[in-house]
Amino acid sequence: MRDTAERNDDLLHRVLLTRVVEPGDEAAGRWVREFGAGEVARRLTEGGPVLPGVSGKRWAGMAARAALARPGRDLAVAREAGVRFVCPGDAEWPGQLDDLGDARPLGLWVRGPAGLRLWALRSVAVVGARACTEYGAHMAATLAAGLAEQGWVVVSGGAYGIDGAAHRGALGAGGATVAVLACGVDRPYPRGHTQLIGRIAEQGLVVGELPPGDHPTPTRFVLRNRVIAALTRGTVVVEAAHRSGSLVTARAAQRLGRLTMGVPGPATSALSAGVHELLRGEAVLVTDAADVLELVGDMGQLAPERRGPVLPRDLLEPATRQVLAALPARGTARPDEIARRALTAPDDAIARLYELRALGYVERHGDGWKLTRQAVMSVRDGRAPG
Amino acid sequence: MRDTAERNDDLLHRVLLTRVVEPGDEAAGRWVREFGAGEVARRLTEGGPVLPGVSGKRWAGMAARAALARPGRDLAVAREAGVRFVCPGDAEWPGQLDDLGDARPLGLWVRGPAGLRLWALRSVAVVGARACTEYGAHMAATLAAGLAEQGWVVVSGGAYGIDGAAHRGALGAGGATVAVLACGVDRPYPRGHTQLIGRIAEQGLVVGELPPGDHPTPTRFVLRNRVIAALTRGTVVVEAAHRSGSLVTARAAQRLGRLTMGVPGPATSALSAGVHELLRGEAVLVTDAADVLELVGDMGQLAPERRGPVLPRDLLEPATRQVLAALPARGTARPDEIARRALTAPDDAIARLYELRALGYVERHGDGWKLTRQAVMSVRDGRAPG
Repeated sequence: MRDTAERNDDLLHRVLLTRVVEPGDEAAGRWVREFGAGEVARRLTEGGPVLPGVSGKRWAGMAARAALARPGRDLAVAREAGVRFVCPGDAEWPGQLDDLGDARPLGLWVRGPAGLRLWALRSVAVVGARACTEYGAHMAATLAAGLAEQGWVVVSGGAYGIDGAAHRGALGAGGATVAVLACGVDRPYPRGHTQLIGRIAEQGLVVGELPPGDHPTPTRFVLRNRVIAALTRGTVVVEAAHRSGSLVTARAAQRLGRLTMGVPGPATSALSAGVHELLRGEAVLVTDAADVLELVGDMGQLAPERRGPVLPRDLLEPATRQVLAALPARGTARPDEIARRALTAPDDAIARLYELRALGYVERHGDGWKLTRQAVMSVRDGRAPG
Repeated sequence: MRDTAERNDDLLHRVLLTRVVEPGDEAAGRWVREFGAGEVARRLTEGGPVLPGVSGKRWAGMAARAALARPGRDLAVAREAGVRFVCPGDAEWPGQLDDLGDARPLGLWVRGPAGLRLWALRSVAVVGARACTEYGAHMAATLAAGLAEQGWVVVSGGAYGIDGAAHRGALGAGGATVAVLACGVDRPYPRGHTQLIGRIAEQGLVVGELPPGDHPTPTRFVLRNRVIAALTRGTVVVEAAHRSGSLVTARAAQRLGRLTMGVPGPATSALSAGVHELLRGEAVLVTDAADVLELVGDMGQLAPERRGPVLPRDLLEPATRQVLAALPARGTARPDEIARRALTAPDDAIARLYELRALGYVERHGDGWKLTRQAVMSVRDGRAPG
């Protein structure tokens, strides 16, 4: 772990850079990898030597944007809105985003009580058309509810149509969901989903690359899709017309070696044509949550050991550790009892319970939660559950 | 070519055997391959030595059935009903049925004006559930019409539901269709399809392994499916529940190295569940006739040279040669003009035109038909169209 001062510096430099470069800018990603975020930020703000592969004109534009950036104020505004900035190297950073190479986000703005890294380990993207059919909305909601009930996290883009149905399906099942936005996470988009995105921020996570207040653009929507693809174990496309944005997510997922899945629909439906196109290629046909879990479950159950030192109990966030301690040694407890004992709100307790479930510490039984056998054993011999 | 007397003997023996053994009996197929149909028939009727691998009791039962068989009368009854018996070795025998090995039919009873061998060369099976949905019936009819319009022959099982819709779609497009029955071809089954099967026999072909008057059984339905699979270049399953008979056809097609295709439907439809199961395996998703033709067309356009000496003009049936001769050297003619010049009925002329089209002799242009460039050239130098 880095020391706090070093981490804070890196964080400020990265926040500054999110005001200067667009998401997915691989040249900027390369600079940061080669010179470090601090050196790139310094050259931009203090007039250091121009970085390789950039024209003088472009450099001047970037320097002008850097001069206007107020990373400290951005962080303060974010903190005010309950938003944190998670960087590569942080305990909450989802390691699988590193698969994006130099297109890896500089950092992610995160709003919500859960831990992004743990949630992402056990997540599936459910995406699709904005102007979906009743059938598509039904399938997205049912799939998402089924995944959530099995302890999986449903990731989507917060948009109208399939995305919204997927988020609502997960929330409705009392489950975990993450919205990855193409704008500042303090600035819900679309406006009609302000309430939904607010609920996701309370019960799940709202995530994005763009700094507070930034607005979405067509390019930003497309580049956002690479984050959804990289974050998750697989992407399910529910409905998509030919040349739809969801197909971009699906193809990004394929390139990253993630599973791509598609829900079939009537051959006569233009909104299933894009999905059928995928299904003629590498994508696998799925019709319910069990189909999805059969596929993503095959990819090796959790195996967080390989992901780094996140598992041991003493590396859990204190509040999460408190929720874990609030579970009875035997039998189940209801979330409200657990919340009371952990001195937190029920919503917060539920989010942390799902996080603990993703780690293998707890299981859900109907409305109750209990420690897993492995968790009970790990208390005895001080190990993380295996 | 065998001489006529030899052919007639073999034919009578095979007809007798169709009264003794069930379709797909591989032991019987092996005997015929090893000893010849004549020797097997002789041993059964004249009390020759028992054939290998059969119990005395079973042999006695077969001999009893053989004693009751009247192959000459069967052929006469069939001829009366406009039915011919086509055997391996005959010019009309579809060579691809040999892929069935010892489960190859002893022969096929055929009703209708077209040549089975040529039609089968350019055929696709369209099969599915009897109790299909409106959607399934629509898809089957549209697919079959599209295939027929492109000069392909639609093969199905003559059943209610998808099969019936496929036959009707092909007929409605003025195209070619073959019904493969699980009973005697003089005995339409199901009874409610008497008229449809009658139309198929006039405009297309009605085909089956079972001798005149024989009735269908559940086993015979299942075994009929292997004939549909073997006869065609590929099988499209339109709607099928889990454990449906159409899945048997599809799997038989896969085992025979034929293409298996499936039309997707709503994930919520039990009648698409079997198709989705196939699509998760080897089957390819198709949504229209163009998709199907992209796949079966890839298997090498026709290439009848490899199939044997069927192509040369002097091996065409005389009546087909007459229809070919009725086409103008330049430009198109309508089927009724062609029929008049060929001294035949329009339905018969249309069936033969499709046969000639499968061979590359003629092309359809809207309502008219014309000689292909290759056919015109072949007249000049006496070759078959290449």
